[in-house]
Amino acid sequence: MTVDLAKLIEALPADTVITDVDVVAGYRHDWARDPDAGTPMAVVRARTTDDVQETLRWASSNRVPVVPRGAGTSLSGGSSGIAGGITLSTERMRRIEIDPVTRVAVVQPGAFNAEVKTAAAEHGFWYPPDPSSYEICSIGGNAATNAGGLCCVKYGVTTDYVLGMQVVLADGTAVRLGGPRLKDVAGLSLTKLFVGSEGTLGVITELTLRLLPAPPRMSTLVANFATIEAAADAVVAITAQIRPAMLELMDNGSINAVEDLVKMGLDRTVGALLIARSDAPGDAARAEIEIMEAACRANGAGEVFSTDDADEGEAFTAARRAAFPAMEKVGTLLLEDVGVAVPELPALCHGVREIGERNDTHIVLVAHAGDGNTHPIIAYPPGDIEAEKRARVAFGEIMDLALSLGGTITGEHGVGRLKAPWLPDQLGPDVMALTRRIKDALDPDGILNPGVVL
Amino acid sequence: MTVDLAKLIEALPADTVITDVDVVAGYRHDWARDPDAGTPMAVVRARTTDDVQETLRWASSNRVPVVPRGAGTSLSGGSSGIAGGITLSTERMRRIEIDPVTRVAVVQPGAFNAEVKTAAAEHGFWYPPDPSSYEICSIGGNAATNAGGLCCVKYGVTTDYVLGMQVVLADGTAVRLGGPRLKDVAGLSLTKLFVGSEGTLGVITELTLRLLPAPPRMSTLVANFATIEAAADAVVAITAQIRPAMLELMDNGSINAVEDLVKMGLDRTVGALLIARSDAPGDAARAEIEIMEAACRANGAGEVFSTDDADEGEAFTAARRAAFPAMEKVGTLLLEDVGVAVPELPALCHGVREIGERNDTHIVLVAHAGDGNTHPIIAYPPGDIEAEKRARVAFGEIMDLALSLGGTITGEHGVGRLKAPWLPDQLGPDVMALTRRIKDALDPDGILNPGVVL
Repeated sequence: MTVDLAKLIEALPADTVITDVDVVAGYRHDWARDPDAGTPMAVVRARTTDDVQETLRWASSNRVPVVPRGAGTSLSGGSSGIAGGITLSTERMRRIEIDPVTRVAVVQPGAFNAEVKTAAAEHGFWYPPDPSSYEICSIGGNAATNAGGLCCVKYGVTTDYVLGMQVVLADGTAVRLGGPRLKDVAGLSLTKLFVGSEGTLGVITELTLRLLPAPPRMSTLVANFATIEAAADAVVAITAQIRPAMLELMDNGSINAVEDLVKMGLDRTVGALLIARSDAPGDAARAEIEIMEAACRANGAGEVFSTDDADEGEAFTAARRAAFPAMEKVGTLLLEDVGVAVPELPALCHGVREIGERNDTHIVLVAHAGDGNTHPIIAYPPGDIEAEKRARVAFGEIMDLALSLGGTITGEHGVGRLKAPWLPDQLGPDVMALTRRIKDALDPDGILNPGVVL
Repeated sequence: MTVDLAKLIEALPADTVITDVDVVAGYRHDWARDPDAGTPMAVVRARTTDDVQETLRWASSNRVPVVPRGAGTSLSGGSSGIAGGITLSTERMRRIEIDPVTRVAVVQPGAFNAEVKTAAAEHGFWYPPDPSSYEICSIGGNAATNAGGLCCVKYGVTTDYVLGMQVVLADGTAVRLGGPRLKDVAGLSLTKLFVGSEGTLGVITELTLRLLPAPPRMSTLVANFATIEAAADAVVAITAQIRPAMLELMDNGSINAVEDLVKMGLDRTVGALLIARSDAPGDAARAEIEIMEAACRANGAGEVFSTDDADEGEAFTAARRAAFPAMEKVGTLLLEDVGVAVPELPALCHGVREIGERNDTHIVLVAHAGDGNTHPIIAYPPGDIEAEKRARVAFGEIMDLALSLGGTITGEHGVGRLKAPWLPDQLGPDVMALTRRIKDALDPDGILNPGVVL
């Protein structure tokens, strides 16, 4: 421990700066399990905005890198550790206050997405954004990555619900941006800039989130296809006509992985499964389901099944959400997050399959198909160096494929550390330079999450 | 004409730089009619992104201020002229391309909002944002101010529809941000930063806009109230339960001004009129109308009328939109745009009336009530210096009132030049400093729309 760290320990309340090596080791990785992650010199478990300010003031004067971390569920290495750095955890900042009259939630960043949803539901409200990891991911991380989920196809992503925030800048200044106003154009769109900035511009210590009235009842449609391309064609046909409340895709590999895990009776022989929902009120749901059914049949669907039963519908949605944990049983994973404009979805799905075959690598695909956002999941046997090499080649080729289709290297997980090398390929030198100018203006010493994005 | 301007004229195609004093004089004011506006030394009527780049390169080397201008309908002086500056008009950049497969519109900034709507409708699609001035305001100006409108209460504001853009930076570099992808978190949220930046960070030369399926049929409810406060209470009761597709408020003064203009038979004696719409499909619209009717009656509504007839509903919406032109017949106007969280709406409406009485100033009020965004319209007899003084006092007091209620000085019109003096009262010194850092990073010479926002 250096003298400098002693000053930080002194400045913060007891039991805030953790230096126990075993505990600190647990903050080396996030869910991306980046082998290049470093072990931080200490972890600050902040309880208050003051704690965050003290930490950033100290880090700025000492030029120590700070990695902000919510629940550590980043899939792109956005919160993996830096040797010699501080990991600033918000896991103790969990307060959630619902203002039922203004219909907003004021939350601290460490609260889980699911906890926000539950608190909102207790007042009859709904917080829509729903990453598959919603039960274990933090709302601060959601804001930092502008997280998406399953409902986004109709209800938008995290940025659409962030009305305001308190954020601590690199020098320790805490500012309030936005507030509980549905329309506010006073000054630059700073709230929007910090959402999705992946901890590179500031550390969010409070969020004001817009809530909607309780979600309507859901009707669910499930359709089988012989090929994933046919299912993707059906997606294009559906989104050309209506806005479903959910439109998810699973390929044969993901169906089998999930069935191995949960044994819910999914048909292991089909090429792909489409799971779609309508939340149109009353009879209108039936009309939307019929439009979707017709689009599926016109694109060669086999069995098509629909239900108004909420539990039955939820079971299929849960199956889709289980794809990632199910694949963890299959091997070591590289999780992709590429997206394209919806009409390019069939080409993307086809190309991913080709990349798997060409590289002799096991890739399964699930997708938030309705907004063109796919998650090819690459699995290789743990410890198999050659297979890992092939997997990493496939990982890069999938991003190249998405870019060749006019797409993005990340739809909702963020660039993090894992994808930073590919970002210039998407943005080009001028936009990278623009990004650098903003980064330098807000974090001149580069202490905030270095290695992420830039 | 200086030697410098000759260089710009040479660099641009013939008939692009306008120096005819009579023509240039027409670019001194926008709709805010700011008496402090200056007459630019020339107007550049750009046809292409190249023209915009040339202009900004020249302006940067010569440190000449540039005022970007769409249709000149700014109500906050965002596009009013600067003496010795260049006004860079996009009025000739009007191309609109609809991509029906990807369901986006790719538009140049000078196209009118209504032209985008019409082009989208020709393919069966809908571009929702609908400022009251939609027939005459430019889509580039809409993006620059993050414009709102009547549908925002359910369908969001301009930023929710901007998927990507081409923007020319102060030094003339043109960059592409975002694109036709519904989810994309690759890099900082730069697209969102430029939306609402009021021409202070760059000049937008192309927008990629998300389109929705054709709008559903609308049912309309119209309710009379004895007081505006009672109508505002009904608004709070409605938004606590459902998301109407429109929820607009007119006070007695605005009703009378509109009735003078259009003679559609509005009841001149009522204190306020609420115009609400539901676009829920099928029978669900009836259910929403019933919820709204009950909320109105519970808050003392007199006559309540509802219709599923589209033309009849549109007539009331048109009446609401006519408030601003109708008030132009009454006197010289100062148009306010303050907003609050919806529960504070009754207090805001009440306070505005008090400010009018206290300052012996005629103020009428219309509001996008469902999202707490009000437009008090202050009218005074042209040329009456004392009345103008009182009007300006009231203008400031209304902003102070909004801030005292936790609100914003501008919900959708932008800060422009007229409200820049009040912005620090809302944002505070730290957020102003943060704004300045971003402005300096992107426009180090301060040539882009100086006097706006900062």
